[in-house]
Amino acid sequence: MTDGARQMTSLSRQQALGKLASVPYGRVGFTHHALPAIRPVNHIVDGGQVIIRSHDGAAIVDLPSRGRVRVAAYEADQIDPATGTGWTVTITGPVYLITDPQQADRYRQILHPWVADEVNHVLRIDPQIISGCELTARSTASTTR
Amino acid sequence: MTDGARQMTSLSRQQALGKLASVPYGRVGFTHHALPAIRPVNHIVDGGQVIIRSHDGAAIVDLPSRGRVRVAAYEADQIDPATGTGWTVTITGPVYLITDPQQADRYRQILHPWVADEVNHVLRIDPQIISGCELTARSTASTTR
Repeated sequence: MTDGARQMTSLSRQQALGKLASVPYGRVGFTHHALPAIRPVNHIVDGGQVIIRSHDGAAIVDLPSRGRVRVAAYEADQIDPATGTGWTVTITGPVYLITDPQQADRYRQILHPWVADEVNHVLRIDPQIISGCELTARSTASTTR
Repeated sequence: MTDGARQMTSLSRQQALGKLASVPYGRVGFTHHALPAIRPVNHIVDGGQVIIRSHDGAAIVDLPSRGRVRVAAYEADQIDPATGTGWTVTITGPVYLITDPQQADRYRQILHPWVADEVNHVLRIDPQIISGCELTARSTASTTR
């Protein structure tokens, strides 16, 4: 029996990366021209790293392509709007351009962007901070007698 | 007939707000301690403004509660992972704490946060920048004879 409210349980680092790997897309968040920006993209998790693709001229590519540090957040969730239960995971860390041609090619073969035009770059986000939580129905069985 | 790639069509301001209003939740993006942050929350769109709730001590509340400017992005999407078609909308603008008790109460009655504990604040994001696009299957009928 539930009272309609949820309780939040933290996920371990490994659980959180597992949840992220279980879904095909999420949203990358970063700062662009001093403003917060969010874009949905698809991803894979490989060797504990979050791999996304982006096109020439995309704001997220600008700094890494000039050898400068870009920090991004990446979030995915699965929340049932009817019950409000599910999970959300956010990782935060520096973004690297994958420059090794073989490695980039391998990712290009398994990660297909939604819009194919000029999506050249393969990016890796190193999840230095990982936070995740599960939202479950709060049982009221123990409090109602 | 489609080639598997999608084409992106921009949504008007009104279309984008309509899409946002059609779904119950999205993700708020902002900068916290110089790092990008993303949190999923539920929302309503009222009078062209995006209304969300947050709890005491949440990072998004800190600046507005001290009368300082916090700019946030808010993103929602509906993307079919199988086909890669759907839409995404992002709005960007300043965040205001709703301090009028009647107005705040009205929103509290229609906007129920997932985790009920101490979710006191009602926030309004003024969408000064609105961008949205629709991802549709690209027909190849005209190019294949």
